[in-house]
Amino acid sequence: MKRIAILGSTGSIGQSALSVVDAHADRLQVVGLAAGENAELLAAQIARYRPEVAAMANGAAIDRLNQIGAAPTVIAGTGRDGLAAVATHPDVDIVLCASSGTEGLEAVLAAIEHGKTIALANKEVLVMAGAIVTDAARARGVAILPVDSEHNAIHQCLHGRPAGDVRKLILTASGGPFRGRSASQLKDVSAADALKHPTWRMGRKITIDSATLMNKGLEVIEAHWLFGARADQIEVVIHPQSVVHSLVELTDGSIIAQLGVTDMRLPIQYAFSYPERWPAPLPSVDLTRAGRLEFDRPDTAVFPCLALAYRALDAERSLPVVLNAANEVAVARFLDGRLPFTGIARVIDEAMQAHRPEPVSTLAEVRKVDQWARERAAGIAEKVELEV
Amino acid sequence: MKRIAILGSTGSIGQSALSVVDAHADRLQVVGLAAGENAELLAAQIARYRPEVAAMANGAAIDRLNQIGAAPTVIAGTGRDGLAAVATHPDVDIVLCASSGTEGLEAVLAAIEHGKTIALANKEVLVMAGAIVTDAARARGVAILPVDSEHNAIHQCLHGRPAGDVRKLILTASGGPFRGRSASQLKDVSAADALKHPTWRMGRKITIDSATLMNKGLEVIEAHWLFGARADQIEVVIHPQSVVHSLVELTDGSIIAQLGVTDMRLPIQYAFSYPERWPAPLPSVDLTRAGRLEFDRPDTAVFPCLALAYRALDAERSLPVVLNAANEVAVARFLDGRLPFTGIARVIDEAMQAHRPEPVSTLAEVRKVDQWARERAAGIAEKVELEV
Repeated sequence: MKRIAILGSTGSIGQSALSVVDAHADRLQVVGLAAGENAELLAAQIARYRPEVAAMANGAAIDRLNQIGAAPTVIAGTGRDGLAAVATHPDVDIVLCASSGTEGLEAVLAAIEHGKTIALANKEVLVMAGAIVTDAARARGVAILPVDSEHNAIHQCLHGRPAGDVRKLILTASGGPFRGRSASQLKDVSAADALKHPTWRMGRKITIDSATLMNKGLEVIEAHWLFGARADQIEVVIHPQSVVHSLVELTDGSIIAQLGVTDMRLPIQYAFSYPERWPAPLPSVDLTRAGRLEFDRPDTAVFPCLALAYRALDAERSLPVVLNAANEVAVARFLDGRLPFTGIARVIDEAMQAHRPEPVSTLAEVRKVDQWARERAAGIAEKVELEV
Repeated sequence: MKRIAILGSTGSIGQSALSVVDAHADRLQVVGLAAGENAELLAAQIARYRPEVAAMANGAAIDRLNQIGAAPTVIAGTGRDGLAAVATHPDVDIVLCASSGTEGLEAVLAAIEHGKTIALANKEVLVMAGAIVTDAARARGVAILPVDSEHNAIHQCLHGRPAGDVRKLILTASGGPFRGRSASQLKDVSAADALKHPTWRMGRKITIDSATLMNKGLEVIEAHWLFGARADQIEVVIHPQSVVHSLVELTDGSIIAQLGVTDMRLPIQYAFSYPERWPAPLPSVDLTRAGRLEFDRPDTAVFPCLALAYRALDAERSLPVVLNAANEVAVARFLDGRLPFTGIARVIDEAMQAHRPEPVSTLAEVRKVDQWARERAAGIAEKVELEV
């Protein structure tokens, strides 16, 4: 029996994870659940899975949870402390980090220090603090199993192959809802347009990141930290059908690929079951019905966020923090209808240019750069919004 | 330094193997070469690679070799004895079996008994004597590394995964030169038409087998023996681009695929280097230039040879021997311009129907069935040829 804590249990990934638990009730037990502000759903999850510990984003959410009358589960706390308390509960074997944005950073680091296996669905953690987190995992001998479908695919393709056998990691991207458009066609797209992802159903923030290709940019940085690949070893190809989840090119030119349905239960279950592999109650890909599989180069002139991410990865360690923070600010303002779609890349670009890169070796330093970048990005966004 | 014997050194695979040796002269040494009747080419190979031992199909070929004045290499013998002598030379580590048809059977078995690693490019060996050969390899602890691009791909996809994790093996087939044609359109095709393979350059026999899909049928039987998969676990998909060389579906529905250029040096080098992986002087697949990858079901009404192979695998052990022998006879007569293309499947079908399946547990029993089937197939072919 593997004992699971889920950070972000009411989100898209969290709910898929509980569906994996349902399918493998004989193998998985929910020990901890942490959610943001959706007290109603968390209450229902607590009633069903009877975790030993739970947490929410803030006191008001906890109050609503108590009013609903959740099962007698220990409330570990709120905010980042609450996440960390759930993640480090002594009965937990695996922590699934699926909380949104950068909130889960301290919890992941604390879980690593407590020797927990990390199932990582939150790419911001490695984008912001890749060196700190992977150093800690190495020092503690803790596995970080990627849940992002692309990195999960690469983990499956590598299957323990030595780093020296790898020439290149190839991340696939659906291209998002605006694939094939010109830059001028993107000026007036709305949040509703951008939220219509062609192949994956995901949360709002990541769906916008898919539309800008920043999601792929963050994945490039994540892949660097997870697999120790240099920026020039990580390639992105547009693959609209989302059947091939990613590929690894080996030193002899041979390519290993992982294919599957677009259902996050597959990579979540892989992370929970690893190194075993369990049957899944999911259809497999029928290649003869999948139609044609196409691959194309990304157009970074139209989607500059991808190029910004490569630039951040190439530079000093604080630049990815700025990239990520500015992106979170810009995407939130785009979703609010304030910033135009093309303003997202502009805000990030200007924030990165305004930043003097510096080494970041502690979470406090990361948080300081993060805070600076958020304020700066907000200021830039206001200026861009006034111009429209 | 790995020491290599090549059975079939003057054939297409043999020449590719020597090209791999050229690229890795610091890692590979040629100890033995065996060829059929091409004394000129073998003499040139002997002069260049200075093997310790060589063999040819018959005394006349050896005489020509001596007339040319090959380097002072020991001539091991002729025919099957010569192949076995080269394969079991005490200095040999790896035997590449790339001799055509069933000639290499005794040599492979002898090499296994001498503890040599087998790089198997000749599928007839396992089609005829799969149980005998794999039992011997298991008993002796000898690895059989597949060189056929499809099985090599599956070996790479499995990468040591336990059999219990595997749901299905998916062999890709280019579909050959007659993909998409109707049965009536195949009646009058010539050997020259059938020899025009769209993606692979190979020997004549295997190219015809590709046109009838019997090549894929033999591969289904080969996959059964190599990977312990049941017939209902082995699927064939038509993939005209020959970029994906084969795939493995795992128990959770995830699919692992191997992609590469259509160059036999890649699987040959893989077999020579295994478990290491060496850089190869070959271009890798550029997915964005590969165009669309398509997958389709094979049409066994138009290409009945594939269905015949599944039928042979499902039945008693002697039926694949009949399938293979009748196919060799029929293909030779088609290449000679005697038997029509559609007659190939008919000869095999009638030979299989005339056969009473029996257990085959020794090579002598295999050879007896083989001999019976060849005579029977020749008789059937004469009848079919008269009808045309």
